[in-house]
Amino acid sequence: MSAPARNPSLTSAELSQVDALWRAANYLSVGQIYLMDNPLLRRPLRAEQVKPRLLGHWGTSPGLNFVYAHLNRAILAYELDMLFVTGPGHGGPALLANTWLEGSYSELCPEVSQDAEGMRQLFRQFSFPGGVPSHVAPQVPGSIHEGGELGYSLAHAFGAAFDNPDLVVACVVGDGEAETGPLAASWHGTTFLDPVRDGAVLPILHLNGYKIANPTVLSRIPAEDLDRLLRGHGYAPRYVEGHEPTAMHQAMASALDDVVGEIRRIQHMARSGQADEDRVRWPMIVLRSPKGWTGPSTVDGVQVEGTWRSHQVPLPAVRENPEHLAALERWLRSYRPEELFDEHGAPTGIVRALVPSGERRMGASPHAHGGLLRPLALPAAAGYAVDAPEPGVTSAEPTRVLGEYLREVFHRNPENFRLFGPDETASNRLGAVYEVTGKAWQAAIEPVDEHLSRHGRVLEVLSEHVCQGWLEGYLLTGRHGMFSCYEAFVHIVDSMLNQHVKWLKVHRTIPWRRPVASLNYLLTSHVWRQDHNGFSHQDPGFIDHVANKSAEVVRVYLPPDANTLLSVAEHCLASRDYVNVVVAGKNDTPNWLDAEQAALHCVRGASIWEWAGTSAGREPDIVLACAGDAPTLEVLAAASLLREHLPGLAVRVVNVVDLMRLQPESEHPHGLSDREFDALFTTDRPVIFAYHGYPWLIHRLAYRRHNHPNLHVRGYKEEGTTTTPFDMLVRNDMDRFQLVIDTIDRVPGLSTTAAELRQRMAESRQRHHTWIRTHGEDLPEIRDWTWRH
Amino acid sequence: MSAPARNPSLTSAELSQVDALWRAANYLSVGQIYLMDNPLLRRPLRAEQVKPRLLGHWGTSPGLNFVYAHLNRAILAYELDMLFVTGPGHGGPALLANTWLEGSYSELCPEVSQDAEGMRQLFRQFSFPGGVPSHVAPQVPGSIHEGGELGYSLAHAFGAAFDNPDLVVACVVGDGEAETGPLAASWHGTTFLDPVRDGAVLPILHLNGYKIANPTVLSRIPAEDLDRLLRGHGYAPRYVEGHEPTAMHQAMASALDDVVGEIRRIQHMARSGQADEDRVRWPMIVLRSPKGWTGPSTVDGVQVEGTWRSHQVPLPAVRENPEHLAALERWLRSYRPEELFDEHGAPTGIVRALVPSGERRMGASPHAHGGLLRPLALPAAAGYAVDAPEPGVTSAEPTRVLGEYLREVFHRNPENFRLFGPDETASNRLGAVYEVTGKAWQAAIEPVDEHLSRHGRVLEVLSEHVCQGWLEGYLLTGRHGMFSCYEAFVHIVDSMLNQHVKWLKVHRTIPWRRPVASLNYLLTSHVWRQDHNGFSHQDPGFIDHVANKSAEVVRVYLPPDANTLLSVAEHCLASRDYVNVVVAGKNDTPNWLDAEQAALHCVRGASIWEWAGTSAGREPDIVLACAGDAPTLEVLAAASLLREHLPGLAVRVVNVVDLMRLQPESEHPHGLSDREFDALFTTDRPVIFAYHGYPWLIHRLAYRRHNHPNLHVRGYKEEGTTTTPFDMLVRNDMDRFQLVIDTIDRVPGLSTTAAELRQRMAESRQRHHTWIRTHGEDLPEIRDWTWRH
Repeated sequence: MSAPARNPSLTSAELSQVDALWRAANYLSVGQIYLMDNPLLRRPLRAEQVKPRLLGHWGTSPGLNFVYAHLNRAILAYELDMLFVTGPGHGGPALLANTWLEGSYSELCPEVSQDAEGMRQLFRQFSFPGGVPSHVAPQVPGSIHEGGELGYSLAHAFGAAFDNPDLVVACVVGDGEAETGPLAASWHGTTFLDPVRDGAVLPILHLNGYKIANPTVLSRIPAEDLDRLLRGHGYAPRYVEGHEPTAMHQAMASALDDVVGEIRRIQHMARSGQADEDRVRWPMIVLRSPKGWTGPSTVDGVQVEGTWRSHQVPLPAVRENPEHLAALERWLRSYRPEELFDEHGAPTGIVRALVPSGERRMGASPHAHGGLLRPLALPAAAGYAVDAPEPGVTSAEPTRVLGEYLREVFHRNPENFRLFGPDETASNRLGAVYEVTGKAWQAAIEPVDEHLSRHGRVLEVLSEHVCQGWLEGYLLTGRHGMFSCYEAFVHIVDSMLNQHVKWLKVHRTIPWRRPVASLNYLLTSHVWRQDHNGFSHQDPGFIDHVANKSAEVVRVYLPPDANTLLSVAEHCLASRDYVNVVVAGKNDTPNWLDAEQAALHCVRGASIWEWAGTSAGREPDIVLACAGDAPTLEVLAAASLLREHLPGLAVRVVNVVDLMRLQPESEHPHGLSDREFDALFTTDRPVIFAYHGYPWLIHRLAYRRHNHPNLHVRGYKEEGTTTTPFDMLVRNDMDRFQLVIDTIDRVPGLSTTAAELRQRMAESRQRHHTWIRTHGEDLPEIRDWTWRH
Repeated sequence: MSAPARNPSLTSAELSQVDALWRAANYLSVGQIYLMDNPLLRRPLRAEQVKPRLLGHWGTSPGLNFVYAHLNRAILAYELDMLFVTGPGHGGPALLANTWLEGSYSELCPEVSQDAEGMRQLFRQFSFPGGVPSHVAPQVPGSIHEGGELGYSLAHAFGAAFDNPDLVVACVVGDGEAETGPLAASWHGTTFLDPVRDGAVLPILHLNGYKIANPTVLSRIPAEDLDRLLRGHGYAPRYVEGHEPTAMHQAMASALDDVVGEIRRIQHMARSGQADEDRVRWPMIVLRSPKGWTGPSTVDGVQVEGTWRSHQVPLPAVRENPEHLAALERWLRSYRPEELFDEHGAPTGIVRALVPSGERRMGASPHAHGGLLRPLALPAAAGYAVDAPEPGVTSAEPTRVLGEYLREVFHRNPENFRLFGPDETASNRLGAVYEVTGKAWQAAIEPVDEHLSRHGRVLEVLSEHVCQGWLEGYLLTGRHGMFSCYEAFVHIVDSMLNQHVKWLKVHRTIPWRRPVASLNYLLTSHVWRQDHNGFSHQDPGFIDHVANKSAEVVRVYLPPDANTLLSVAEHCLASRDYVNVVVAGKNDTPNWLDAEQAALHCVRGASIWEWAGTSAGREPDIVLACAGDAPTLEVLAAASLLREHLPGLAVRVVNVVDLMRLQPESEHPHGLSDREFDALFTTDRPVIFAYHGYPWLIHRLAYRRHNHPNLHVRGYKEEGTTTTPFDMLVRNDMDRFQLVIDTIDRVPGLSTTAAELRQRMAESRQRHHTWIRTHGEDLPEIRDWTWRH
């Protein structure tokens, strides 16, 4: 399965040009890793011109440069609109080299000009304090993908291609990355990519054979097994294998000619209604080339090129060891820089010949820099509000109401909004969206199926990783979306969230990166309502995880009912450059606020619900605070019990919908000032805080507040199983009876009536235990409870 | 690719027996979901005999029952030692049914006896408050895998098979689960499984076609693509497809006969030195059967059997709707319970005929219950200690020293210890282990390769998911291991950690589950030393994640040097039923403590380092606390500056190695009493705490301590890039200069000397900034700093 014997694709001029471009990028890659000065080697190389700390990854760079050069040729030849996703994102030098060569880098970063001084700066800044990172970070033009963690390139590529019919997303997948789970699952993107309305993804599996210290699985299994694997995933692979540059250039050019032709054929057939097969077989390329290709063959007597030893810095002791220094100079000069850069240090004509211009340059793609973002046409949340004439009189399933809102969002934005989920859209009760769009599906459709569609724009695959990766790719190329997920299992993408927040944090500081839509999580089927599943499905810790991330990026909302969820959703969908985490219930919940009250409450983020308490016009004896739908219900039930049985007690109910309000304003942009916080929570009264998640998060957010010593938090403390909703509350000591007990225990000087009430509450908890074990459901007084004024 | 036409594998008697066993398990599965009473249907079914809350998952259950029945036949026929891993772990009713039928359940849970009353109890307890969960939780005999989250079954199966040469691990992989990343990556386990020293994994891919609300990818891609995919992963699949029971029984029996024969052939060839091919092609089974097979075909006029609608409870309104009630009774009676259970309710002879006995029953496998655990032969850590005649005089790379210790652990335990890592064993400097074992590798080996071995017991694959899954499977079947991982990327397995901790928490409460070895993480290449990589590789939040989990299970250690790392490692490797997180550096670090001091410090978990401070014999003016290697170095450097420039200041240095010591003793078993805490940290002096990770974690752990108001924590606050180690500290305000400034700012009544020192420190920070941007490395005074007495 080596490159097919056929007429050369490249003329000899083109061959020289593509080779020059490749050599130039290789030269610049090595220069970045090693040189502080003498960038053009106009003088003999001296040790002090070499960086004191040699950092970076050479091994993957020549392969990336090879691909980039050939893609440039194809862009020119076929007038392609192409985005480059760098799976081996640690190959930062390669992308920096190529964007500098094509001029996009210097346009965006004028201090790194396309001349000798600019080249010196390009080299010096790389992995240098105050310079640019060693990876394909947001600082690199044309990138939407850092790849430091490995695993997400192909999902990002598919995300970028959705709803971008004219775009080809070239995605280099490293053979190390290919061992990860998220990447392995991402190959199935072909089952979801619509050849009519979406663009193309061109995977280029780069088998350079080694990871940090090991061979890779895909490079060492039999070649026919690799071929089966890729065909099984729905691809038609072309192989480009070898190391001799001329043959490899011809093979790669020929493969790309084939691939572009095949993509155009597939798209033409599909778009003209002539789809002729059940399954589109997208082309892809397998590039098998040596790791560290064109670098030092051996160093200190051991083989380096073509092995894992070329992964980072092949010549490690250049400043100390004259032989290494000489080898470095030979290596650099082997690219013949005098042919590649003119007297001013700018790329020569032969290097520029195959470089596209303007926005066709991959480093200047407007897709990559948020430049194509169009705001969503958002309906007003109030138009979808449920009727709430008085608090708690009506009820609704919040996510079902949100589904109706999202239906309209889809309707108004048929080209730049998508919903992503791991087979949970219906389970999470967002099914109304299917009235206006379907679920993307390119595999077989059977008569019994519902809502599957070749052009559907709800994406459901049972992989949180793939959902997240798709959404990130979709957002970073200027579109909008939402990820709906079971709360417990969103932890599956903890590490992807880390990387996306890091990306956004840096992205926000780069002037040529325009704001992108926020990544919106809807976490439902949450910890308190896993009636069918139990302990394995109970985990509210994603909020804690998010709260650790950069405050300028993360937001957490806990809307207590349908109308607040609508208001939060509208706000989040309109926002930019954030990660918004919205935790909301799907089960029937009383409507506490009407549309107007909900909007006001959400703007405030936290407020006193006067109607729920008994402290109007006076200082409270106790503050009952709540965040989350289940805690809110319990706090209101507790307030109700207290009002009935201890009418003299001044109870204040505070609801928190925007969790970051609890942090000091110095720590988070949403943080309340101390004055505002004290106005809600007092400075000296006991506060019982019923919280949706792990209770200590509230302490971690509020530990600097004046009244922190009086703060007592109830929440989930890892007690759970398959049981009733109320039993979950009892097991975690957040039930209404316990909240009343907590109140009585903390308010000083209460009467004997209070002591009797406390006793009755303890008995109620006991009664609950007995009842559920006999009847298998909650006490009637719990099931039938409604808020009464 | 339907079942091959061949002579029937089953005699007619066997056919009747396996069908009876299957029907019995199906009957019991339905009974668990629906019935409170009348378990044998001796009387007509009445609505009040049905549970008020119908919870559970029917859809996958009949397929699991089918597989289990046939595996029983094969176990009997071939005297197999077999473990059953249930990928569709939400099919709890199936496993409970089968273990009850085989008698293992009643032996372990005598209150659920093998008679009518026991059956009533079996039904009633399922998903019932106070009963058993709906999933294959630790309460289910024979299970090592809950599967609630989906994705880890196949990795668990491989983990169980390693070093278990006589075991066959049957692993049902659901076609929903197969879409996840971790499962997709796990197929490659064949590249690591040694047919000589390991057992066999038998994947049974169950294509029932649907997830919660969608078809599955693998059931809808063309059959030839599925076949290519599985063959590409190195398997030789057999297909069992259909729905007619007799044909399906014959096909499944025939497939299992083939598969067992092939496993034995492969093992015989390999073990007799006759391996005849480059790649072993392990057999597997693809079972394509209807979802909800044998359940109601239609309900309320829509198709249910064979669709996603059978996923949970096919007849949802049995108590309210007489038609549903009648349909349920018809459904239950369709299994002909009168043939399956005798007058006492015990399984009849025909049901028992194919059930193995004793430990061959999959629900009684000692592999599953920790019964085969042998303690590690552990060398004494002190024997590997580095020389530390005085604090800070010598230095070592802690993980390299640990590598020498682990080499001896491998040497002494050649059959029940393994090291797992995502291609980072060498990078993390544990390479000494290769002197006694190699890296497992069953693919091609080339001359340039180092340490690859067909029988190696270091497992390296670039998938943290697979590493974690393998290790979990290995531990839960009674062996020992360690997972070495870059600190930032261990977040990839956050959700797997959640599930494992949940498993352990419940496992510890089940008397017939014996203790298993702890899951030990070695997190290195940590946040402070990502010199090559930068921001994407900087995340210390796994500790926060772990700290949220059940206190009885989790432990976190931050050894500051080589000898403390050794002591911690010895302790962790000997421990049981915990998750131990050890964060340690790989870079050259001063040795602060000798072996004896290290052991004592680790037992204490936190102690005053008198030699490092100036407060011996008096109350401190300031406490400088530290946890982690980089913070410890900075605190000692700060203490050194203070001693030199403010000799009158009484500085106490406290080092914390066991982080959970900071929690109150009521919250964590390792928590210090308030008296002990106060003795270290005082009740009223300022405490500057330099911490390895996110600073607020220290507040969250210590917020109830008396001296919390005086606690000021420095740590990582998401400021990072590719830069020098010291610059990382400066960017996060945890450098020695800042710690001195913090001290001066917090100790009242200091002299003008202090004010001058403060000014000099601020200047040093400024000098640092200028220097690194010019020289690309840290100030000489930082690089050359050593601790001096």
